[in-house]
Amino acid sequence: MRDTYHEELDALGERLVEMTRLARHAVARATTALLDADLTAAQEVISGDDAVNQLENEIEYSAFDLMARQQPVAKDLRTIITSLHMAGDLERMGDHAVHLAKVARRRHPDSAIPKELRATVLEMGHQAEQLVIKAGEVITEQDAEKALELDKDDDQMDRLRRKLLTRILDPSWKHGVEATMDVTLVGRFYERFGDHAVHVADNLIYMVTGEKPGDEEREP
Amino acid sequence: MRDTYHEELDALGERLVEMTRLARHAVARATTALLDADLTAAQEVISGDDAVNQLENEIEYSAFDLMARQQPVAKDLRTIITSLHMAGDLERMGDHAVHLAKVARRRHPDSAIPKELRATVLEMGHQAEQLVIKAGEVITEQDAEKALELDKDDDQMDRLRRKLLTRILDPSWKHGVEATMDVTLVGRFYERFGDHAVHVADNLIYMVTGEKPGDEEREP
Repeated sequence: MRDTYHEELDALGERLVEMTRLARHAVARATTALLDADLTAAQEVISGDDAVNQLENEIEYSAFDLMARQQPVAKDLRTIITSLHMAGDLERMGDHAVHLAKVARRRHPDSAIPKELRATVLEMGHQAEQLVIKAGEVITEQDAEKALELDKDDDQMDRLRRKLLTRILDPSWKHGVEATMDVTLVGRFYERFGDHAVHVADNLIYMVTGEKPGDEEREP
Repeated sequence: MRDTYHEELDALGERLVEMTRLARHAVARATTALLDADLTAAQEVISGDDAVNQLENEIEYSAFDLMARQQPVAKDLRTIITSLHMAGDLERMGDHAVHLAKVARRRHPDSAIPKELRATVLEMGHQAEQLVIKAGEVITEQDAEKALELDKDDDQMDRLRRKLLTRILDPSWKHGVEATMDVTLVGRFYERFGDHAVHVADNLIYMVTGEKPGDEEREP
């Protein structure tokens, strides 16, 4: 049997995994909102963000409480600190889903995404989901090997963003200024969503091994 | 005489103020980089970001250390927690200055900012500096009244961003797709820089009073 202290440490991990579930749902719905000009989906993402923020607050509260009461060292201290960082990254992933939803809402009843880019944006949404699902698995399984894969998985997201930009910059791009602005921001929000998933994985690696993976600035 | 414990708490505040100085310098140089297509300024901002990150790490380390050794409660605990939040916001302000500098670097030797928008971007840079200077004063003076002003000061930044967007969306806008993308992102980065300055002020209010100011989602 685990004692209360270790149960509370475990609970941090469970809340983080719950945050990955919410972030996955948010980015999936935001993608629907964008592609289908679905206002209900957009509103759902925007109002659903409170639950993500609430979880972050709970993680913070319980981390600070553990720190003050238990004076943890070594691996336990690392677990608490990295949990705070991961919660911060997941909260920002939720924010990026909200930003996507707001682009959709602003253009409603039109879709912010021109037809010819729908497939690419759909793929970005799919990639975002895959990244956050894997981040959740990595936390559950405490798997530093698997966590290392996320950086490479995220390259696919960067390729998709470049594909968007290349299309926008092509002389045949005729969709006008609003679409240019929307697609620029949408590309950036998905990319940042992916970057934060990689940060989550990096923190997990540090939690498990005590070693930091490369922390080069990955943006913009 | 202050004891070591309270000296360490004070040192958190001094490091935060130092972060505001660095963030101010970064956004000022990034504005120069954008307006004058000044590659040296851009590189300086990009490489200077390490110092900002370093300070954030020091604040984190010392906050966690204080928490584990002193089991602070009430105002002291609030000071430590809000210092962590403020350090996070200031670190992201540094990141936004880097994003601005990277836009400048990408367009060098051209300027990313069309002539007719130079005055507006200059004003946004100026406004960003004012906001972070005031955030620094608010921390130094622990002045919750003054901190309340930042939210209103930041409205000016939002107005400037809307001015950019209105210009881009005007039928007479003829600067092409690259400029549209650059100005869209530049507008967003300044706006986010301002939002984080407001968050710093909000945290200071909570630190001093124990009450949270309204935390509505201010973006995008």
